[in-house]
Amino acid sequence: MDRTWNHRAQNRQARLARAADTLGTRLRGKRVETGAVVDLLHAVIESGDRVCLEGNNQKQADFLAKALVQVDPERVHDLHMVQSVLALPEHLDVFDLGIASKLDFSFSGPQGGRLASLVSQGQIHIGAIHTYLELFARYFVDLTPRVSLIAAHSSDADGNLYTGPNTEDTPAIVEATAFSGGLVIAQVNEIVDHVPRVDVPAGWVDFVVQAPRPNVIEPLFTRDPAQISEIQVLMAMMAIKGLYAEYGVQRLNHGIGFDTAAIELLLPTYGESLGLKGKICQHWALNPHPALIPAIEAGWVQSIHSFGSELGMEDYIRARSDVFFTGPDGSLRSNRAFSQAAGHYACDLFIGSTLQMDLAGNSSTATLGRITGFGGAPNMGSDARGRRHASPAWLKAGAQAREGLTGARGTPRGQKLVVQMVETFREHMQPAFVERLDAWTLAEQAGMALPPIMVYGDDVTHVLTEEGIANLLLCRTDEEREQAIRGVAGYTPVGLGRDRRMVENLRDRGVIRRAADLGIDQRDATRNLLAARSMRDLVRASGGLYQPPARFRNW
Amino acid sequence: MDRTWNHRAQNRQARLARAADTLGTRLRGKRVETGAVVDLLHAVIESGDRVCLEGNNQKQADFLAKALVQVDPERVHDLHMVQSVLALPEHLDVFDLGIASKLDFSFSGPQGGRLASLVSQGQIHIGAIHTYLELFARYFVDLTPRVSLIAAHSSDADGNLYTGPNTEDTPAIVEATAFSGGLVIAQVNEIVDHVPRVDVPAGWVDFVVQAPRPNVIEPLFTRDPAQISEIQVLMAMMAIKGLYAEYGVQRLNHGIGFDTAAIELLLPTYGESLGLKGKICQHWALNPHPALIPAIEAGWVQSIHSFGSELGMEDYIRARSDVFFTGPDGSLRSNRAFSQAAGHYACDLFIGSTLQMDLAGNSSTATLGRITGFGGAPNMGSDARGRRHASPAWLKAGAQAREGLTGARGTPRGQKLVVQMVETFREHMQPAFVERLDAWTLAEQAGMALPPIMVYGDDVTHVLTEEGIANLLLCRTDEEREQAIRGVAGYTPVGLGRDRRMVENLRDRGVIRRAADLGIDQRDATRNLLAARSMRDLVRASGGLYQPPARFRNW
Repeated sequence: MDRTWNHRAQNRQARLARAADTLGTRLRGKRVETGAVVDLLHAVIESGDRVCLEGNNQKQADFLAKALVQVDPERVHDLHMVQSVLALPEHLDVFDLGIASKLDFSFSGPQGGRLASLVSQGQIHIGAIHTYLELFARYFVDLTPRVSLIAAHSSDADGNLYTGPNTEDTPAIVEATAFSGGLVIAQVNEIVDHVPRVDVPAGWVDFVVQAPRPNVIEPLFTRDPAQISEIQVLMAMMAIKGLYAEYGVQRLNHGIGFDTAAIELLLPTYGESLGLKGKICQHWALNPHPALIPAIEAGWVQSIHSFGSELGMEDYIRARSDVFFTGPDGSLRSNRAFSQAAGHYACDLFIGSTLQMDLAGNSSTATLGRITGFGGAPNMGSDARGRRHASPAWLKAGAQAREGLTGARGTPRGQKLVVQMVETFREHMQPAFVERLDAWTLAEQAGMALPPIMVYGDDVTHVLTEEGIANLLLCRTDEEREQAIRGVAGYTPVGLGRDRRMVENLRDRGVIRRAADLGIDQRDATRNLLAARSMRDLVRASGGLYQPPARFRNW
Repeated sequence: MDRTWNHRAQNRQARLARAADTLGTRLRGKRVETGAVVDLLHAVIESGDRVCLEGNNQKQADFLAKALVQVDPERVHDLHMVQSVLALPEHLDVFDLGIASKLDFSFSGPQGGRLASLVSQGQIHIGAIHTYLELFARYFVDLTPRVSLIAAHSSDADGNLYTGPNTEDTPAIVEATAFSGGLVIAQVNEIVDHVPRVDVPAGWVDFVVQAPRPNVIEPLFTRDPAQISEIQVLMAMMAIKGLYAEYGVQRLNHGIGFDTAAIELLLPTYGESLGLKGKICQHWALNPHPALIPAIEAGWVQSIHSFGSELGMEDYIRARSDVFFTGPDGSLRSNRAFSQAAGHYACDLFIGSTLQMDLAGNSSTATLGRITGFGGAPNMGSDARGRRHASPAWLKAGAQAREGLTGARGTPRGQKLVVQMVETFREHMQPAFVERLDAWTLAEQAGMALPPIMVYGDDVTHVLTEEGIANLLLCRTDEEREQAIRGVAGYTPVGLGRDRRMVENLRDRGVIRRAADLGIDQRDATRNLLAARSMRDLVRASGGLYQPPARFRNW
């Protein structure tokens, strides 16, 4: 029997020696000359390695991605890519070029169509699609990266890294790699004498290379208030009055979208008129949404912990350090792992959107011909059954869910509020409510063990559409649940197929509540209620501190 | 309206200035003279602060704890303590002395009795009891520490910290505190020119003080094989053959205890005889249990990520870096936050023990007169409903759970295996199975919103006793579940109250399986099956690398 127990450490030394040999004077300390990066990758990556090419929701190690696609597939092949987001063409080029063959990931967004195509051609074998925290968890169990290619803002001569506000996945990736005999290669925008703060200690980093251009960062969480519709205003009013106030939700997460942007912009106007300031929405797990500026300025928000940052919000965050998590340098410290843990265990409410929901309440953004993944939604949009601390919102939801039940299911406890907020028809008049999710067909086509469902029906507590709120916590049978969903599904075929008597009965019981039932006059749902109606209004609300990227400016 | 948005930063500067004033030359850089620590605390802690006094499962900031109880309650009072473990008398003395008044925590272990007493006297107001990751999550939402008192092994002159193998909670505590305008004070065993590795960057630390003695560390995870009974051997055989092999469990967590130590010690003997090597138990979220040494040596284990470390295992870990997560210095890097995430999302099986289980399968270690908390059990012993990656074990459990169900509950998905492994009678012949958990009475006495249940019945998949295995996944009604539990509850009143016909029917259906049903001959269940039968055997198996603490040595 082989009695060597430090293969990884020995192999690591061999790779470092190869790098030193190959690079010669192009390597000084940990610093690699920009032009030598492909040679570095040839020296330190071996075929079959698990590689994390840092792809976040926002920040991308784009220079290293461009380098990786230049390695010779004869020398480096069958890599197993383990990264949360596929955002850049290069993230799929590595498969197209025969450099990588296996993939474990969380979210593919704009690359979803091409990913599906490469899978169907047999060029990518997908291990699994994960929620973010789940993928990070596997980094410490059975998907530990051997080489990680990461992005930071700057480095000092020793290799201490400053990520700037978009720390995102970096700490989880680096810790798993550096403490398992792996190698960490960082691209940085600049090399400086002193980094503003240390986000990753030098001892965890093996090579630093200055990229010719700053790394790519996408402003994913900016929504122009000018594009918010009056339907969205109405739905936001129902969310605030019928859900946030109803349950007294103090700790919550909002994701991307105009629906939740509308809620954020109604807090200091409509929310204020209902006397809700201080009673709801004080603590957030949230990227720094510009749409939240008016609520912050009006004193609604006590704290925000962020998964990543948002371009243009840097100065505003710096000037509002009571609210945001910032470092001694004044800039945001984001951390996707901790913010996802916060979303899972410390928030009372998750509100998200979907492309499709079936009659059991299962929802999915997976559609035919696209494999996109769900990012953080499954983690935050599921009941955290390990949670043991109580809050009024959680206890009320739990009591509603369990009333009348016996045995194990009836044992009292709280429950996470999980809201799906959708208009009954989405783009191109596609109904959001369907008899059968496309996810089932996709699973058959792609040979998946299970249909890619984003949020399971028994985790969804409320469905909110322009027609009203269905409270699934109060449903006791499959049929009640189905009719509650049909009862807010509007003029979709699913909505038209409702049993009118049963829906009226559910309404009488408060399972379904229309705007009028909540005391909301639809005529009040105008854009005038928005605390900001344009990007310019947001800038003004911030006292000029918010500086939107050019694409969002028309002045 | 107050338009200041950086109160925290200003207040932080004020505290730092007070420290400089108060300490004078007793403060050089970040280094505080040992004798000045109480003055430091007076200078930087304000009444009403949220304070994290690092108490881990193992490592304790004991010197800072002793300092905190010396502050003047006239000057510093009403602190809100937010720390995972209450292990030292000082952790409660701060309440007794009127320095602190509110507590949010995870586990109190040996202090559970005194905690209950202080609560009943009104000297402690408990916010909530959390599972570890949940408490860390709240550090980033609504329980952010203002001052954290932590422990590390060494520091350099700048304040870079080396935690050694017991990193444990430190990264989560420090990140939440340092990036929210809080203050971090570290006690260290020594101050050195160069730390072996940086576990916490200097920029995240405000003050370093050398403690007169090394910090306290408890060897909690060491179990002397000499104390393992033949009943435990039998139960371990059932676990391996009836659960681990049955489901093909590759990724799992073991906690503290002789029951699971027996399983670990049977892998290279009984497990080997069943041909299971490579087929089960390759990846672990686990403290470095000495009882796992024989399995590691026999090549069973691919990876172990650890919550903390274990005294005496240092050299062994260093020599087995292919298996453990270690730093460039060779010593373990543990991290409770990531290991709990691994236990939640990346493990297929959690096996734990309990003091009481009711007829719905709800279990609790809470007993009258003690408030102990559950540590990591609720997090790892609950179905991770956000999980989206499949494995054979998870899919099989999920299929068993959902067979025949319809609607939302019947939508196919996997399920975490959650096993409660208990002898039917515990110490002093107290039955482990009861009609009503003490948790209910405790909740009434202490005014808790919910009874302190550790693992809810609908998360438990199997109950394993010396009488057999009850597979609750296959139960479809409250009554079936009750009889399945009664059917393995032996001679306890609950066991004697079984409906014999129904139990035999459940056995025919494979819901209950006795040792004989698994092809296990009880006469084979002898201590001879243990791969090590003494501490000395463990040391021998480790090639002399494992060095047990003196209390575990009799040679």
